[in-house]
Amino acid sequence: MLLQDLRAEVLEANLELVRRGLVLYTFGNASGIDRDRGLVVIKPSGVSYDELRADHIVVTDLNGKIVDGELRPSSDLDTHLLLYREFPEIGAVVHTHSEYATSFAQAGMPIPALGTTHADYFHGPVPVTASLADEAITGRYVHETGVAIVKHFKEQGIDPLAVPAVLVAGHAPFCWGRTPHDAAHNAVVLEAVARMAYRTLTLRADCGGVSQCLLDRHYFRKHGASATYGQKK
Amino acid sequence: MLLQDLRAEVLEANLELVRRGLVLYTFGNASGIDRDRGLVVIKPSGVSYDELRADHIVVTDLNGKIVDGELRPSSDLDTHLLLYREFPEIGAVVHTHSEYATSFAQAGMPIPALGTTHADYFHGPVPVTASLADEAITGRYVHETGVAIVKHFKEQGIDPLAVPAVLVAGHAPFCWGRTPHDAAHNAVVLEAVARMAYRTLTLRADCGGVSQCLLDRHYFRKHGASATYGQKK
Amino acid sequence: MLLQDLRAEVLEANLELVRRGLVLYTFGNASGIDRDRGLVVIKPSGVSYDELRADHIVVTDLNGKIVDGELRPSSDLDTHLLLYREFPEIGAVVHTHSEYATSFAQAGMPIPALGTTHADYFHGPVPVTASLADEAITGRYVHETGVAIVKHFKEQGIDPLAVPAVLVAGHAPFCWGRTPHDAAHNAVVLEAVARMAYRTLTLRADCGGVSQCLLDRHYFRKHGASATYGQKK
Amino acid sequence: MLLQDLRAEVLEANLELVRRGLVLYTFGNASGIDRDRGLVVIKPSGVSYDELRADHIVVTDLNGKIVDGELRPSSDLDTHLLLYREFPEIGAVVHTHSEYATSFAQAGMPIPALGTTHADYFHGPVPVTASLADEAITGRYVHETGVAIVKHFKEQGIDPLAVPAVLVAGHAPFCWGRTPHDAAHNAVVLEAVARMAYRTLTLRADCGGVSQCLLDRHYFRKHGASATYGQKK
Repeated sequence: MLLQDLRAEVLEANLELVRRGLVLYTFGNASGIDRDRGLVVIKPSGVSYDELRADHIVVTDLNGKIVDGELRPSSDLDTHLLLYREFPEIGAVVHTHSEYATSFAQAGMPIPALGTTHADYFHGPVPVTASLADEAITGRYVHETGVAIVKHFKEQGIDPLAVPAVLVAGHAPFCWGRTPHDAAHNAVVLEAVARMAYRTLTLRADCGGVSQCLLDRHYFRKHGASATYGQKK
Repeated sequence: MLLQDLRAEVLEANLELVRRGLVLYTFGNASGIDRDRGLVVIKPSGVSYDELRADHIVVTDLNGKIVDGELRPSSDLDTHLLLYREFPEIGAVVHTHSEYATSFAQAGMPIPALGTTHADYFHGPVPVTASLADEAITGRYVHETGVAIVKHFKEQGIDPLAVPAVLVAGHAPFCWGRTPHDAAHNAVVLEAVARMAYRTLTLRADCGGVSQCLLDRHYFRKHGASATYGQKK
Repeated sequence: MLLQDLRAEVLEANLELVRRGLVLYTFGNASGIDRDRGLVVIKPSGVSYDELRADHIVVTDLNGKIVDGELRPSSDLDTHLLLYREFPEIGAVVHTHSEYATSFAQAGMPIPALGTTHADYFHGPVPVTASLADEAITGRYVHETGVAIVKHFKEQGIDPLAVPAVLVAGHAPFCWGRTPHDAAHNAVVLEAVARMAYRTLTLRADCGGVSQCLLDRHYFRKHGASATYGQKK
Repeated sequence: MLLQDLRAEVLEANLELVRRGLVLYTFGNASGIDRDRGLVVIKPSGVSYDELRADHIVVTDLNGKIVDGELRPSSDLDTHLLLYREFPEIGAVVHTHSEYATSFAQAGMPIPALGTTHADYFHGPVPVTASLADEAITGRYVHETGVAIVKHFKEQGIDPLAVPAVLVAGHAPFCWGRTPHDAAHNAVVLEAVARMAYRTLTLRADCGGVSQCLLDRHYFRKHGASATYGQKK
């Protein structure tokens, strides 16, 4: 079976979303990329997580041509592909309709950096894209969703690995990371951060959030060359 | 046993409501119809879900005459019957007091189409009926509940299969679908959509919701001749 | 063992509170009364629910004198006793700090009858007592808690079986019923009703609630001589 | 193995945080102190709770020098150490990012004493520290977090055993107690109290909370020489 290890990692990432309560029925999908071969492995469309096996995972090239697998890929494939093409540092993408993050997406509101839990994972607010124009929606909609994400990150100068998540306006979050494990982990933490941001903002709508200094301190405690969290490797 | 397959489907739909946390104690009920025979199968009244078996399911004709079964049918039978008579496309009805949808019903507020999760299942806002007049409440109350639902859909020109759910003002939701499986699935998604709408509106009360264009795009991605979601059948 | 059946019922009522998520650690207690003998059986104070057995249950007379059992009774015993003395129709009392009902108690707000779920169990708002005066708090505080409850029901002319629950201001709910099973069931439904009232009122603070006509219709559907819900007995 | 009993207690306290849903992934940590030997035992950094064993627990002196154990201690060690040095009555410290307490910390709001559940455990509001200055954040940040906590308690004259919890502004709660069991228990109750305070304040923002008299009554019912709750020991 082609890309057996990556399939297993992508399967595990999909199942982590279920275990953590981020997906209902078949909503949501995770993918990973083998950069050397230029191949993407992704959950098939509309298959129940209970029945999902490694050999159901679909393999495509970076243009979406199916290379291996008998099922249709996730209907969100074209968003994943665009993110892989435009964000060369990332190795995996996760899409869910996790409920609190989706509520911010529906409200068209970014998730501000309100505390250190956020700062440990996201080096700044989790942004929300612009709404898609009707031409984009009626055109290559799934592809255009990726275009809106990439446009926002490029225009705002946001490093996708420093803020590995976005809210698509009126839709739901996409997350990513270096590996399928990291992308799923980021999706789970995003939802926890969104739950806390929701409660913080409904307690105190004018909450300003953490200082740049505290944001830096926590982010770099877990990321980069000077990270001090966890065990030495 | 008469209508054995449909009984099994209706039993399974009732149990899905329990598994998904939509019902407390004996609240809620699901039914299905065999259109060829004009027979409705429905949960009995006040029986615990733990003990519910296929042979407890009651069979009535479209006027509510019991054709098979030793238990009383659900106390909401007359609402189900009216929906079957007036909405000939539907094959199953589900009633729950699922908590977020019920909160909108209690507030007398429709659930607006705030995002794509909603649009994937409901092609427009989930409407709320008018309050029942005292004469309707003291008269054939359960039947009149159905009358209020049908009146709202007809007056507003809403296709019941395109918006397979309603909130009865001051009461709770009714959902439906082509099959018991679909009706229960719609009830589960309605509750998820209601949870997200609640959080969206408490974050931002003036949230306008998705554009008609996005609503159409998502709805028709999962419904109708041009649907692209899931596996080819 | 004295009053073996009632002990078993009271034990089961205590455990139902745990199963339904109404109690944290040792918070909460249920009791029942044998009216013929004038004896009350109640949970012991501060005993873990995991370890609770029928022979831990304490038996007292209506003045709180321990008649059987080696453990101290619940620290809320005197509230239970007063309710038994003043509300002769009731056969069981349940006290929890269930979180949504307690939030209304903390806010000093009654739970209005906002929908039919409420009306099925509570024939009017679930009232909140007056705050206790300092003399009552520093005096026979637990007894005075009962006094405040009874005073409110008598002054407002509320039938304790028609509204089998109260919120003690700044504290938490007490519920009751004809049997330990009913009292626990009422406590579970109260918490569900409080969850929905919380969400309804945060969506729409000016929500007026159901009409008297709908309140009567639902309440008497499940209670009294003309009840039509459930199976004939 | 050094301090075998205390390690077991600290392990158990860490696991109680998981069982009660207070921690996500590796967030959170518990420690305990042996006052006679001046040794602190604490969870290692970034180790999964699933794999955590008593021999993973790290032992340090009160200056943070590792005395036993092969793993790095929790990255929050220096806050624990300062609390042990400055609050000589306490025997254990717990840090979590439990979501409701963290939401208050993010909002920079103390948790007011709104009811008796609060009063049973916390003899006054759970305070929130001042925000740390940039010099403190870029300096010995983890140590300075402890400094901010101790400063607040000393300036406000709060007895750390009477109010065994604090919210660090923009960050999350720290709790403590005489033993690891008590500290974890306080963390669990703090989160329940925060959930109820959140709902109370979103129902009624101007809620004043309980009187000093009721606060005293409940606090001293469970604490001190005149406590009446639970079984005699």
